[in-house]
Amino acid sequence: MHKPLLAAVLPLLAALAPSLAAAAPPVALASEPKPLAPLEIVGQAPTADWSAIAPADLLVMDLAPDAAGKLRRVVIQLLPPPFSQGWIGNIRKVAAAHWWDGTSINRVQDNYVVQWGDADGEDAAKAKPLPQGLTVVAQDQYTAKAAPEGWANAQHDAYAAGTGVVLGWPVSYAPGGVAPVHCYGTVGVGRNMPPDTGTGAELYAVIGHAPRQLDRNIAVVGRVIEGIEHLSSLPRGTGDLGFYKTAAERTPIRAIRLGTDVPDLPHYQYLSTESASFARYADARANRRDPFYIRPAGGADICNIPVPVRHAP
Amino acid sequence: MHKPLLAAVLPLLAALAPSLAAAAPPVALASEPKPLAPLEIVGQAPTADWSAIAPADLLVMDLAPDAAGKLRRVVIQLLPPPFSQGWIGNIRKVAAAHWWDGTSINRVQDNYVVQWGDADGEDAAKAKPLPQGLTVVAQDQYTAKAAPEGWANAQHDAYAAGTGVVLGWPVSYAPGGVAPVHCYGTVGVGRNMPPDTGTGAELYAVIGHAPRQLDRNIAVVGRVIEGIEHLSSLPRGTGDLGFYKTAAERTPIRAIRLGTDVPDLPHYQYLSTESASFARYADARANRRDPFYIRPAGGADICNIPVPVRHAP
Repeated sequence: MHKPLLAAVLPLLAALAPSLAAAAPPVALASEPKPLAPLEIVGQAPTADWSAIAPADLLVMDLAPDAAGKLRRVVIQLLPPPFSQGWIGNIRKVAAAHWWDGTSINRVQDNYVVQWGDADGEDAAKAKPLPQGLTVVAQDQYTAKAAPEGWANAQHDAYAAGTGVVLGWPVSYAPGGVAPVHCYGTVGVGRNMPPDTGTGAELYAVIGHAPRQLDRNIAVVGRVIEGIEHLSSLPRGTGDLGFYKTAAERTPIRAIRLGTDVPDLPHYQYLSTESASFARYADARANRRDPFYIRPAGGADICNIPVPVRHAP
Repeated sequence: MHKPLLAAVLPLLAALAPSLAAAAPPVALASEPKPLAPLEIVGQAPTADWSAIAPADLLVMDLAPDAAGKLRRVVIQLLPPPFSQGWIGNIRKVAAAHWWDGTSINRVQDNYVVQWGDADGEDAAKAKPLPQGLTVVAQDQYTAKAAPEGWANAQHDAYAAGTGVVLGWPVSYAPGGVAPVHCYGTVGVGRNMPPDTGTGAELYAVIGHAPRQLDRNIAVVGRVIEGIEHLSSLPRGTGDLGFYKTAAERTPIRAIRLGTDVPDLPHYQYLSTESASFARYADARANRRDPFYIRPAGGADICNIPVPVRHAP
């Protein structure tokens, strides 16, 4: 359900302030035999609280096998509308054209990003021609015009007026609009200096502490839901900004396909952020009461409440 | 200069709210020819703004060479007083006894921690005997009784009343005391269920988004200042919680020594958090005005303002 942004969201945020604890009444927790860890709550979530991720919304990247010959597959969920729609269309075209096949991972900057695409993309004489029909996306699509209702909190966020999870996605609220945020695993579109917004053929994934300064400055288009370790454990780049100095250091990309073009893909689901299970999970992330902890924090930043994803049982 | 915690810190925080921008007056920035990126500010910091890190406060870990035969050295700065003193004494004794030599990295959990020590430590029959004279540290040392003045902000932090950088260290302020926080690269003490607080012989380093839920629940004892990529790029663990299932997967530790016992170590310095350069750097991290950015965030969380460290020129 879409509503005008500020009118709908800010009262909701205000109502939930000042503590995440408000999202899950203590009485529900008091009835439990012992406090559950966040993943125990996820494990007990009923089937109805899980939402399917359509194969058409997946991007499947197969890297060249590792030194031991093991396959390395990275599965990316594309951002749903109403966020970042322009780039998503381009990405579907690039994947359908098999354009990424034979390109490579060109940059691995520690505590920041892994980046892939055409290593010669900046060299007009050698760059691989892009598929026909890509759209030039405007900067105003870094934010959405409206946001559906979802789990939200007005917790203390250093970067925006509030944060929430809408349609399974972490977002921030600000007068300029709602925008998906950069967390560990977030996938975005490499670009040159503004006003360039990037085509979507050059992508990056976050492999460190949330670089939230990028929010609203660059396009978020998805998140890694499986196989991020194949990116985060790659050798770090040897040159400036974590780019590899030599071609031999790059990891080849065998193929990137839309999920609909990949046989035998598992059925993925995310824990619906409109469900009671998600509210309990988010509360438990912010207030760890499981036995290892002695002092629950009373809060958690939006990137420390990752949306659970699983293979459908 | 030490003061009672709450009386000293909370007015300071209140004075700096609501925006980091208050820490560096706009007029100072308006006189610049173009807005500088954070690392440009660091590069221009005068010599007087850098503080030496004593070799006695360094822990130097040499891993077995990688597959290509390259050395892998990780340098850790130990936490200064008044934070976590009990464990630091134990760590000095464990290093002096060469106890870690021949142990291994046993756990690499993606977006969480790398952990090292005696892989058989949980097996009383096989555990390597600890050095004599280790102290049992009390839980109340997770927080400090007092904190010197430093750069601070009352920015929106989800986990505590406020955050700051004191003696070059990111900390959080709460009624229970000031405590070092868990950021990317933070080193802490593995422990069993409370009230166990760990000895310091089993250590971990954060390799993902800041797990701030650990603050005040486990001992922070340092941070990696060089070579974190040798930890963060290790193959992820194959078993529960990222522990390796087999001994062959573990990375051997050749030696861990105090900096005073390592010849030819570089001289390390950190950007003094009491300096004008640090205030400008922190402001620029929170308000990116360099040409790549179109919308400065107006804030940054404490773990997104890492303290710059360099080799002395």
